[in-house]
Amino acid sequence: MTAVAPVVLDAMGGDHGPAETVAGAVAAWRAHGVPVILVGALGQVDRELKRHGAVGEIAVVHAEDTVPMAEPGAAAATLATSSLAVGCELVRRGEGGAFVSAGSTGAVVSCAVRGIGRAAGVLRPALAVALPTLTGGASVLVDAGATADPSPAMVAQFALLGAGYARTVLGRADPVVGLLSIGSEPGKGNRLTRRAGELLAALPLRFHGNVEGHDVLAGTVDVIVTDGFTGNVVLKSVEGCVRTALAMVAGAGIASPDRLAEVARRYDPETHGGAALLGLGGTVVVAHGSSPAATITRACVVAHALAAAP
Amino acid sequence: MTAVAPVVLDAMGGDHGPAETVAGAVAAWRAHGVPVILVGALGQVDRELKRHGAVGEIAVVHAEDTVPMAEPGAAAATLATSSLAVGCELVRRGEGGAFVSAGSTGAVVSCAVRGIGRAAGVLRPALAVALPTLTGGASVLVDAGATADPSPAMVAQFALLGAGYARTVLGRADPVVGLLSIGSEPGKGNRLTRRAGELLAALPLRFHGNVEGHDVLAGTVDVIVTDGFTGNVVLKSVEGCVRTALAMVAGAGIASPDRLAEVARRYDPETHGGAALLGLGGTVVVAHGSSPAATITRACVVAHALAAAP
Repeated sequence: MTAVAPVVLDAMGGDHGPAETVAGAVAAWRAHGVPVILVGALGQVDRELKRHGAVGEIAVVHAEDTVPMAEPGAAAATLATSSLAVGCELVRRGEGGAFVSAGSTGAVVSCAVRGIGRAAGVLRPALAVALPTLTGGASVLVDAGATADPSPAMVAQFALLGAGYARTVLGRADPVVGLLSIGSEPGKGNRLTRRAGELLAALPLRFHGNVEGHDVLAGTVDVIVTDGFTGNVVLKSVEGCVRTALAMVAGAGIASPDRLAEVARRYDPETHGGAALLGLGGTVVVAHGSSPAATITRACVVAHALAAAP
Repeated sequence: MTAVAPVVLDAMGGDHGPAETVAGAVAAWRAHGVPVILVGALGQVDRELKRHGAVGEIAVVHAEDTVPMAEPGAAAATLATSSLAVGCELVRRGEGGAFVSAGSTGAVVSCAVRGIGRAAGVLRPALAVALPTLTGGASVLVDAGATADPSPAMVAQFALLGAGYARTVLGRADPVVGLLSIGSEPGKGNRLTRRAGELLAALPLRFHGNVEGHDVLAGTVDVIVTDGFTGNVVLKSVEGCVRTALAMVAGAGIASPDRLAEVARRYDPETHGGAALLGLGGTVVVAHGSSPAATITRACVVAHALAAAP
């Protein structure tokens, strides 16, 4: 696996960096053979590496600043000395094959688009999230929020990027793609989906046609393609809805909160390796801000696999 | 209440028409003083009225045909002799103040827009659904699917229509309106929401600003305004998600399916009176296809209140 350039990990990102991020990097290398470059405040990162007896085993690149979790957006991209900016620059220069951060999604996306840039031929990047489904598997929702106003051609390209993600991360050899719309018949939807549907039907992929909101967690298709506005609203609606439904069950006093929390964890989109920003010059994976070491490790393994995929 | 023109009820709509629809109409009149005109196959409707001893008490208008539940769209609007078309025509002529049907939402919306037409000054109709929230109340989602590609001015008008619905049906004196978007700061979103947000800020209503997907069931605002594409996707996602979350709880064996079904019923958007199509020359309420008599009665009462509202 070392033929692929290492994964660059933002050591400072998330609520528990650098302790959990460094622990996750050490496990990614020792347990999975995934090489990692840590980016962050040298003194803090070295202290954590010492705990694991891993000084010299995992490479470290110093970054003076940390983008706070509260900074959700484009302003973060202007701080050239942050661990986000330094990490993305390593990927842009080819020293890293992928970038992983548990920082704020908005800040990571802004920094990555600005710092790494798009892959050749890609019109716009898209965020892919694997949503757990009722059937026990997962469906990839793409775009979950990177490009709010895509053209139909961009949506068609998101489908190809999402299918690649489903092959690499979910192991689907020939993923089935559905277009999120209103009404299942072809031609139902808005202007964007009607034209995107025509383009998708002509692409070399298994196009199922339209799917609807109730298909999102039903496992109807492997990849659910939509624009970044609709995708982000749906992702956050579904997350909020699971919390609400479980809270109502808890409130009705018919199941113990502990057992319900287990169910909620199984539902966490992050269990499948975080959100991947597809279509850039290097893969970018955004892990949940509250990620423990094991989730960081999983995100590094996913990022490495995506970077190695043809 | 008889100062307002009667509610016109599609006796044939839904999975249980005309038995449940006629029973619902009788209760609307006897228990709530809401006058109803039943539209449907005369023989069948009369037979049901006889069961309730209500022949001559509830008016009946004959309609030769019934639009099947499987017909979801615009094709239904071309059948001039259906109970949908005849009912809408009664409202257009002012003989009814509102139209209620448990038929397919798409068919009802198509027939009503074509048969009743828009109210003066209204750019496009919008579908309003009251979603039960975690806080025990309800938030109105508007547009839930009538207008897939609205302009920003139409979205701003949906907010006014939705606020009127919240006042009349939910009893909110001065409802708070949120614009469904991605990111809570003003200016976050897509082209449509950015412009709609500017227009909303200038309207005489309590505008909260942007809300996100996780606010949909949280009770953050009284009215959630969005375009009909996003609204329909969110509505169906939330309905599917509640089913999925409860199925996972049932699957984990930590609560009895019966008790969970109770929770699910409390969550059913239909408990608050169905979906209302706002902005036409008469109010239109679409009840769920599986509505029993009590739900039909509730829909008639809501429709009558909306028709009487200033």
